[in-house]
Order: sequence, then structure tokens, then C-alpha cells
Amino acid sequence: MHIRDSERCRIVWSIGDPHGIGPEIILKSFLKLEQSGHSFLVCGSWSAMEYYRKKLDLPVILLKVDDKSELQSVGTVQSGILTVLSVAEPESITPGLLSADAGKVAMESLRAAAELCRKGLCDALVTAPLNKEAIALAGFMESGHTGFLGSMFGVHSPCMMFFDPVKELKVALATIHIPIKEVPELIREMDLDTFLLDLNQSLKTDFRIASPRIALLGLNPHASDGGVMGHEEAEIIRPAVERLSNRLRIEGPFPADGFFGAKKYCNYDIVVAMYHDQGLLPFKVLAFDTGVNVTLGLPIVRTSPDHGTSFDIAGRGISSERSMYEATRVAVRIAQNRKQTAISS
Amino acid sequence: MHIRDSERCRIVWSIGDPHGIGPEIILKSFLKLEQSGHSFLVCGSWSAMEYYRKKLDLPVILLKVDDKSELQSVGTVQSGILTVLSVAEPESITPGLLSADAGKVAMESLRAAAELCRKGLCDALVTAPLNKEAIALAGFMESGHTGFLGSMFGVHSPCMMFFDPVKELKVALATIHIPIKEVPELIREMDLDTFLLDLNQSLKTDFRIASPRIALLGLNPHASDGGVMGHEEAEIIRPAVERLSNRLRIEGPFPADGFFGAKKYCNYDIVVAMYHDQGLLPFKVLAFDTGVNVTLGLPIVRTSPDHGTSFDIAGRGISSERSMYEATRVAVRIAQNRKQTAISS
Repeated sequence: MHIRDSERCRIVWSIGDPHGIGPEIILKSFLKLEQSGHSFLVCGSWSAMEYYRKKLDLPVILLKVDDKSELQSVGTVQSGILTVLSVAEPESITPGLLSADAGKVAMESLRAAAELCRKGLCDALVTAPLNKEAIALAGFMESGHTGFLGSMFGVHSPCMMFFDPVKELKVALATIHIPIKEVPELIREMDLDTFLLDLNQSLKTDFRIASPRIALLGLNPHASDGGVMGHEEAEIIRPAVERLSNRLRIEGPFPADGFFGAKKYCNYDIVVAMYHDQGLLPFKVLAFDTGVNVTLGLPIVRTSPDHGTSFDIAGRGISSERSMYEATRVAVRIAQNRKQTAISS
Repeated sequence: MHIRDSERCRIVWSIGDPHGIGPEIILKSFLKLEQSGHSFLVCGSWSAMEYYRKKLDLPVILLKVDDKSELQSVGTVQSGILTVLSVAEPESITPGLLSADAGKVAMESLRAAAELCRKGLCDALVTAPLNKEAIALAGFMESGHTGFLGSMFGVHSPCMMFFDPVKELKVALATIHIPIKEVPELIREMDLDTFLLDLNQSLKTDFRIASPRIALLGLNPHASDGGVMGHEEAEIIRPAVERLSNRLRIEGPFPADGFFGAKKYCNYDIVVAMYHDQGLLPFKVLAFDTGVNVTLGLPIVRTSPDHGTSFDIAGRGISSERSMYEATRVAVRIAQNRKQTAISS
């Protein structure tokens, strides 16, 4: 496919947990995208990539690069060759095994890939799934990709958004990987105004929506039914909506179940859920195979598939690359939008 | 339609909030069911039923009955006539208005209808929606139908289950109308074993499932990912599953979003959600128009539509009776199953 130079993007995939389905969905996505005109790099373990390539008999040639100074060639490599920057090699590969070694590879790969984006050597980062238990075993304190990238770039709370490019459905989470019992307090403590203003800005910059329509869900069942079941709606969420309503197109809080059941999300550019499952439950039912995770508010572009490592099916060649493929296409789209915004501003 | 006497059921509809869509969906459901061979009674306000019948120009003749001793005729009335037992009359009818007066009608109607079932004058209760704020204004302390019926029948915590007869999807809630911040503690305090054993028994009696397959969701995101985000899975839910696994076909806790996203619910007769929105969000996305609420564990049969009063569209003739119609059909099915169980045991 011929695309203009200004639209060409350099994408880096971090390998994720090498015992999960990450390497497989990277290889399969590459096969779908190699003719796209964009260039692709895997940051992680060459031996893991080679292991799955052989095991699954996929027609990809892997080019091993040991030092990022050799990366000039990326983007000009010939079709069918995927460059792999080796930053951490596991002692062995055992699909499905929870291990500290694999957790370490996932995190080293993430760090190096994010660094390539920070330095401008790549335009967008697409992360394959890691396992939170494995990275904890490896001694990392972060609760996952989003927390790690937030720390790395000094962004206090990057926004986790899920996007289905097929339905054009976007769901952002006000709180992410925390126990349910900590959610109400965090909703009270967080700076909801800044969160919403930043979200609005990201929709403008990354998705080129001129005036985003934002819907907020209530925290409690039935959005508390007028205070009968909880007070966060009256004390926190509604006041935020009122404060911001002259600056943003914002509505809510809506009862979450009825909002999704009645397909009200079709009337908004984004839905803000108060906690993980409140956003992810309806999102995954509506968009299981095509959903993409997007981290907003970072200086770099970052997307990922909306599923986990799937240890149960790792190494068997049966995992679907659909979400990884869509995540990569969305990363390209956002990177192009940011370039466009930079040119026009 | 000709049905055997042993299969014939006497259904009572409680009117719900007369300012909501209850009267309308009762009238529309009656028009679909009047030829079914079963008999139908509305318990509530005659003036409200007559108001909506006229306003919406529906071809139903309403027969007013002021005292339940006159109800012998129910079940033998001629086609096209719907009996209304007047137990409370509002001062006026204003579609869409939140009022204590309307809340009072809803609760008096519910109490009288449940009493008819307790006395064996009706076989099943189907409740039209009420508004929790309106009943609070009217001075009722209950959080809704389920709480009221639990108190009335001395059942400590009746189980709220949602059923889609089209997909044969069943979702039960371990906790119901409480603020999110109270959920984790209630999960720790409740008798989960008894809840699950009762649920199993209800599936046998009310749905005639010989050996129900039960799935439990985790409370926290990713079912806590091995303890990284919360401890209720390891401390409460998993031990309950282990204790009961030699008596029930039970599995879990599963990460809620992935469970629904991957359609794992197809492998189980029922899914147990830990809180309201965790169960209702996926349920309403999967089954908005055909979902039915069933209260398990009561001596009487009780179902209802899975939506609220819809004040915004009340009195306009545009509300869908689909869920009310399905709720009535499910009530008939459960009443018949209970009769069958009683005969065969």
C-alpha cells in the first residue's frame, strides 16, 4: 500500500509476558499489516519471538537487533521481515507458566519500547499483555502498563480508555486497578475536574473531535436513585458536571445499567465509568474481539488489546489477533492525528 | 388457547407507580395474553388504569372490584375484560410526576397483591415498576419490591435474579440495592453458603433444572488477579466455592468482564454477580427488552420487568411492554413448575 510520507508511522510492539499469547498475536498482526506502508518493531526477546514463530510455523522472518543504535534500518526493511530489538532474554520459554523471569522480560520490554517513543525513534507503542502476578513476582510494584507509564512520564494518573473502532464506542475509567472497596474514597479524593478536562483535550487531540460529548455514569446502583443508595452522585459527580457544564458538553450521572441497556452511549463520544468493571463489563460484551485499550494523557501514543495473557491457550496457535491488530491500527490513527494537530496548531 | 386445568394460572399484576409506565404496560400485556387461557387481575387503582386506558385508547374493558371477596369471578371473566381490584386511589394522575401519593398507591397495591398470593387466591405476582424516591416520600422504609416482600414473608434476604427467556441467561445478585461502598463488607458478612444452597434449590424447584451449574464472579477487577487488587476472592469467595463443591456444581470466582466478554455464561445455568451493576450491566446489554426480574426464595412466585418507571415517557403510549409480557410468561412458567414439583414430590 502506498501512503504519503507524512502519514507513515513507526510502531513498536512491546512483547508482554513471553509465556502468554503476546508473541503469537504480534506475529499474526504483522502478517496482516506488513503491506500497510508503516514500519514495525518488536521490543523484547528475540528467543521468545523465534520460539513462537517456529512452533506456530508462521511465515515471518525475524531480524535480531541487539542495540538500538542499529535501528536506523527500521522502516526501510523489506516486506516479510520483522525487526526484533532484544532487550531481555528469558532463560527458557514455557507457554502458560507464571514466572518471575517472564514478568521481568515483559517489564524490560515495556520500559525500552516506551523509551524509543520518548526519544522519537518510534511514533506509537502497542503493548502485548502482561500478567500482574508475574510482574509482582519479578519485583515490580506497578499495577500494570498504565501505572508504569504514568510513573515513567511523570503523569499522575493517565486515563485508561477503551475504544471499539467498529462501533466507535469509547469508555474511560475514572479509577482503574484497585479493589472495589477503595473506589468510593478514591472518587471523593481524585480531581475529577482535571480528569474530565484532560479527557476532553485528549479527544480533541487524539481523535480530532471538535467538541466532545461526555457522559458520566453514577457510582452506585441506579445512580443512587436520588440518594436512596449512596451519596457520591449528589456530593461529587453531579457538582463536577455542573461546574464544568459551561466549558464542556457533559451530562450525568446516569444509572449505568439502564444507560448501556438503552444504548444511550450512541449519543456521546465517550462514557466515563467510575470503576473498572462498570466500564469493562458492558464494553467487553459489546466489543470483545475488536476492543482496544488506549492510554490518554501521556506524551507518547500507547494502545493495547483489551484482553490478558490468556495463559490457558498460549502457544497453541488458536488465539485471535483481532484486538492486537485493531490496537495497532488505532495507534497509527492517533499518531497521525497528533501529527496533524501539531501541524495545524 | 385451550390449556389443561392443571396448567391454568391466576396472575395478579401490582400496578406500580401510577405516574410511571406500569398501567400502560399492564394493559398492553393483557391484550397479548387475554387469549392465553390464564386469568389476570390488576391490584391497585381503578382510576389510574382507566385514565391510561382512555388516554392511550386501548381496547380493554376494565371491571372494577372493590372488595377481594368479589374476586371469585376472576378466571371466568369473558375475554377482553380486565378485572381491577381497587385498593388505593390517588387524588389525581399526572404522568411523570414524582409524588408521595403515587408512591403510596404502589406500595398498597404491592401489599394487597402479595396477600392474594399468600392466601392462594392467585398463583403468581408480577409487579409493575415503582419509584424508590416516591415510596421514600410516602414514608416506606423498604428499598423496593424485593426488600418489602422479604419482610412480609419473613425471608431474610430473598434472591434477586434476572432471567432472559430468549437467551436462557440467568444472573443472580449476591447484594442488591446498597451503596457500592457497603458491598465488600456485606459480602464478608453474608452467609454465602446458604445463599448458594437456596439458589440451587430454587433452580431445581422453579426452573426444574436437575443439577444446576453455578458460576460465581469475583468482586474486584480481574477477580483481584491473585490478590493484587483485593482479598475477598481469596478470603471469602474461593473458600465458599471449595466448601460447596462436593454438594453443588459450582465454579469461580471468575473475572467479571472477561467472563461475559468471552460468553462463558453459556456454559452455566446461572451466574452469581457480587453486586447490582456487575450483574445488571452485562444482563441489560445482552437482554434489554426481554429481561425479567425474578425473586427467588419466597413462598410466592414473583417476577417483574427489568426496567424502572420511565417517568420520562409515561402516558405517551410509546413504552415497550415486552419485558412486562415476558415477566408474566415467566411467572406462569414458574407457577406451573412449582405445581409440578409439588405433585411429583
